[in-house]
Amino acid sequence: MPTHPILIAGQWRAAKASGTFRAENPATGEILPDEFPVSTWADCDAALNAAADAATVLRVTPPEQIANFLTGFADRIEARKIELVETAHAETGLPKAPRLADVELPRTTGQLRQAAAAALDGSWALPTIDTKLNIRSTLAPIGTVLIFGPNNFPFAFNGVAGGDFAAAIAAGNPVIAKAHPCHPRTSMILAEVAFAAVKETGLPPATVQMLYQLAPEEGLRLVADARLGTVGFTGSRAAGLKLKAAADAVGKPFYAELSSLNPVVILPGALAERGAKLAEEFTGSCLMASGQFCTSPGLTILFASEAAEQFIVGVKAKLESTAPGTLLSSGVARNLAASVRALQAAGAELVVGGSPLAGNKFANTLLRVSGEMFLSSPEKLQTEAFGNASLVVVVRDAAEAANVLVHLEGNLTGSIYSDTAGKDDALYAQFAPLLRPRVGRLLNDKMPTGVAVSAAMNHGGPFPATGHPGFTAVGIPASLRRFAMLQCFDNVRPARLPAALQNKNPSGKMWRLIDGNWSQENLGE
Amino acid sequence: MPTHPILIAGQWRAAKASGTFRAENPATGEILPDEFPVSTWADCDAALNAAADAATVLRVTPPEQIANFLTGFADRIEARKIELVETAHAETGLPKAPRLADVELPRTTGQLRQAAAAALDGSWALPTIDTKLNIRSTLAPIGTVLIFGPNNFPFAFNGVAGGDFAAAIAAGNPVIAKAHPCHPRTSMILAEVAFAAVKETGLPPATVQMLYQLAPEEGLRLVADARLGTVGFTGSRAAGLKLKAAADAVGKPFYAELSSLNPVVILPGALAERGAKLAEEFTGSCLMASGQFCTSPGLTILFASEAAEQFIVGVKAKLESTAPGTLLSSGVARNLAASVRALQAAGAELVVGGSPLAGNKFANTLLRVSGEMFLSSPEKLQTEAFGNASLVVVVRDAAEAANVLVHLEGNLTGSIYSDTAGKDDALYAQFAPLLRPRVGRLLNDKMPTGVAVSAAMNHGGPFPATGHPGFTAVGIPASLRRFAMLQCFDNVRPARLPAALQNKNPSGKMWRLIDGNWSQENLGE
Repeated sequence: MPTHPILIAGQWRAAKASGTFRAENPATGEILPDEFPVSTWADCDAALNAAADAATVLRVTPPEQIANFLTGFADRIEARKIELVETAHAETGLPKAPRLADVELPRTTGQLRQAAAAALDGSWALPTIDTKLNIRSTLAPIGTVLIFGPNNFPFAFNGVAGGDFAAAIAAGNPVIAKAHPCHPRTSMILAEVAFAAVKETGLPPATVQMLYQLAPEEGLRLVADARLGTVGFTGSRAAGLKLKAAADAVGKPFYAELSSLNPVVILPGALAERGAKLAEEFTGSCLMASGQFCTSPGLTILFASEAAEQFIVGVKAKLESTAPGTLLSSGVARNLAASVRALQAAGAELVVGGSPLAGNKFANTLLRVSGEMFLSSPEKLQTEAFGNASLVVVVRDAAEAANVLVHLEGNLTGSIYSDTAGKDDALYAQFAPLLRPRVGRLLNDKMPTGVAVSAAMNHGGPFPATGHPGFTAVGIPASLRRFAMLQCFDNVRPARLPAALQNKNPSGKMWRLIDGNWSQENLGE
Repeated sequence: MPTHPILIAGQWRAAKASGTFRAENPATGEILPDEFPVSTWADCDAALNAAADAATVLRVTPPEQIANFLTGFADRIEARKIELVETAHAETGLPKAPRLADVELPRTTGQLRQAAAAALDGSWALPTIDTKLNIRSTLAPIGTVLIFGPNNFPFAFNGVAGGDFAAAIAAGNPVIAKAHPCHPRTSMILAEVAFAAVKETGLPPATVQMLYQLAPEEGLRLVADARLGTVGFTGSRAAGLKLKAAADAVGKPFYAELSSLNPVVILPGALAERGAKLAEEFTGSCLMASGQFCTSPGLTILFASEAAEQFIVGVKAKLESTAPGTLLSSGVARNLAASVRALQAAGAELVVGGSPLAGNKFANTLLRVSGEMFLSSPEKLQTEAFGNASLVVVVRDAAEAANVLVHLEGNLTGSIYSDTAGKDDALYAQFAPLLRPRVGRLLNDKMPTGVAVSAAMNHGGPFPATGHPGFTAVGIPASLRRFAMLQCFDNVRPARLPAALQNKNPSGKMWRLIDGNWSQENLGE
C-alpha cells in the first residue's frame, strides 16, 4: 500500500516526507496497514501559503456559505458513520457503542451544526455600534488556525472535524489540521469528508488542509510562522508548553487545553448522607473512557473519618470488580504507569491497582495521601495520571483542606459535594471562594466528566489547564471568539462596512450592542 | 526632604529601597526636589500579599461600592485639579491648557465615571444562562492587576488613575500600580486621592497600591508571580517584550500596548481633490503632543506624483513654521534622535528637521523613502520614532503600495483617505483588505490621533502593537474584559450563584444572554 497523501492547497498530494509511520491497534497490539507521511517544512510552507489565500477569500464569504459547508460536512460524516466508527475503534480501542457511534459521533455533528447556526446568526462576534461617534466594531476572523487534535476524542476534538475546527471555520478562518498520529486513518476519512463538503459548497479549496505528522522542530517553526493567525492545541502539557513558548515569542495567541486534575471536594455531610452512592458516582466518572477524559476526576479531597474510609473501601471494591478498559495507545499506558510511580514516589500510597496489564491496559487504580503529605510536595502530587487512576487526599480538618485548595494549580473544573440538609453550608462557604478562582467550571453535587455543548459552558480555566483563563474550548458561540481579532471601523463609509456593522441588521436576527443596548433591530433609516 | 513613602497594604510607608531617584523637568532641565524610592523585592512581596487578600474581598464586594469608589475618586481628582495640572506640567512638559487641564484630566475622570457605570450595570461580563441544562457563566475578576503606566499620559493612562486602572477596578480587581518614573509626583498625588476614596468607600485598603520604581529584574519577577492575576503594560516595545516573556513563561495573560506606526494611505484622488487640506490635517496630527501619542501617524503612503511632491512641500513648510514642543524627557529626546538616525541609515532621506534642539526638543522632522527602498528593508524602516518625526513612503504604483501594505507589522490604527467622487474606490477596494487585518482600527478620511472612549473603540491591534488582537485598552465596557476570567457554574445551587447569574436580574438593567437571547428580564419564577 503506498503512503497516503496529505491534503494541501485543495489537493490530495504526496507529502514531501522525511519518513512514514503507522498507527497501532491498542487493543490487539497489531500495527495497522496504512502508511502515513511525516511532513517536512515544504509541506508546512505550502499549506501556509494556500491558507493565507483562502483566509482572504473567507473574510468576505457570506456566512450562509460557511454554514452550508458546516452542515454539509455533518451530513457527510453521518453518511460514513459505520466506516468512521470501525476505523476509530481500531485506532483507539474506544468502544464502538455507545461511545463512538452513539455519543461522540453525534456530538461531533451536533457541534458542526451548532457552529453553522452561530456563523449564520453572527451574534458571536459582539458587533458594537456607537451611533453618536460613528464608531463600529466587531470580532472578525483572525486568519489561518492551526489545530492540533488530541488522542482522546478521535471525532469530537479531531483537528479536522472537532470543536476547535468547527469554531475556527464558523469564525471565518481556514484550518490547517495536524492529525493526531494515534488515529491517522480516522483523520484521513474526516478530511476526505470535509474536503468533499468544501468542494460542494464552493469554499476556497484550502479552507481545510491536513498534515499527519511533523518533526517536533517543524511544529515549533509552524506555530511561530507569520502567516498563521493562531493555534488551537489540545494535548499533553509537555508538548503544549513547548509549542506555546514558540508562539509566545512572536506574540501569537496560542489556545491550549493542557492538563487538569479536576479536583472534587466531598464534604462530611454529603459523605454521611450518601457515601455509598457517591462512591459509585465517583468510580463511574473515574472509569469513563478509562479515565481518558480531560475532565476525569484525578484528585478528591475527603475529611479523615470512618465515612471516608468506607468511601475508599467502596471505591476500591468497584474498581476491583470492573474490568479495566483498553488505553488509547501504548504511549498512554507507559505514561500512566510512570505517573502512578511518580505519585507513589512523592508519598501517595496505593489503595488498589497500580500495575500495567497486557493489551495496553492498566489495573484500575486508586491512590491516597494525607493532607499533610500532600502539602509537603504539592507540585509532585499534582502529577496528572492520564487514564484510570485517581488520588484521594485525606485531610485532617477544614484548615488543612483549605490549605490544600490554595495549593491547587489551575484546573478545568472543580466539584463540591455537600449534604442536602445544609450541614455542609459553612464549609461550602469557606471552600468555594478558594476553589472558584482556580477552576474554569465549578460544579455542585456532580462529577466533572460531562461537558455539555452549551452557550454557558466553560471548558477552560487558569493556567496550566489552558493558556488563557478568559476563553472556552467548548460551548458555542463563545468558543468562536478565540479565533478572532477585534476590528474597529472609525468613520468608515457606510458601503464599505462589513454587513454586520451596516445600519440594516443583515439577518434581522443578529444581536448587536447599539449605544449600550443589545438589539436585533435595524439602525434608524 | 525625606524620600517619599510608597502605598502598600493600606499604608503610606517607607519603602525597603535599594536607592532613590528624582524626576526632571524636561522643559527646564531642572532636577525636581522630590525624592522617590526604588523598591526592592520586599515591597513587591508585601504588595502581592496584601493585594491577594483584597482580591478575595473584592470578589464579593457589591458593585455599588466599587462604583462609589470610582466616582468618588473622579470627584477628588477634580478637587485637586490645579495641583495635579501644575505637577504634571512640571514633570512632563505637556501644556497646562488645553492639554492637561481641559483634555486629559476630564478624560481621566470621564473614564473613571464610565467604569463606575459599567461596574454598576454588570453587562460587561457577558453573563450567560442555559436554563435547560442549568449551566451559567460569567466573566469574573481575574485577581490582582499590575499596571505599568506610560510616560505620555500622566493622568489618562496613569497606572493609578488611567484607563487600565479604571477597567481593572471596575472588573473587581485590586491594582498594584508601577508609576512611570518620569512623573512620580503626579502619580503620588493621584495615589493619595485614590487612597482617600478607598477609605471613604470602605473598599479593602489594599485595593490600590503603588510603587515608584523597581530594578528591571524585580519587574520580571513581579510579573511572573503566582499571586498576580494579570498585567496591563503601556510603554516601549523593548521593555514590554521582556516583561511579556516573563509572564508568558508562567502562563500569565499580559496585556501590552507597545509600539505603533499608524499607517496612513492617501490615495491619488484624495490628494488631487484636497491635498493642501490634507497636508494641514496630517501635520496637525503629527505634531499633536509633539508626536507623543500612541496613535501618531508615523508612516504615510503616497503615490509618486506632482501632487505627492506638493503635499510633501506643504508639510515641510508647516513643520518649519511650527515651533517644536518640549519632549516628555531627555530619554525620549535621545531615543527620537536615535530612531531618526536609524531610519536614515536604513535609506530614508531627511526632508526637514532631524536635529536635536536645546531644552529636550527636536526639530519637527519629516523623512521620505521610495517604496522600493522600503521594501528592501521593511523592518528597519518600521522603526518607531516616538516624537515629532514621521516617514513618507512614496510608491511607484498600486502594486508597490500593496506590497508595502503586506509588509506592515501589526498596528493600532490604519487610515485610508479617498476622494469624495469615487475615483479612488477601486484602489480602496484593493488596499482595505490588506490593511484591515494588520490594524485594530481602520479609519476613513481621518487621522488616527483621536481615541474616543467609546464602547465601539478598539485601541488594540495585532502584535507587536499589542500582545493579543482580541482586546482593547480603551473603550468601556470592552476594556474591562481583559481583567477577567471566565467562570462557569454547573448545577450550582441557586443561593450560591453570584448575583449576576441568579434568576432575578440584580439591577433590572443588566444584559444577560439567556438561552441565546440578550435580555434584561428576570428568569421565570
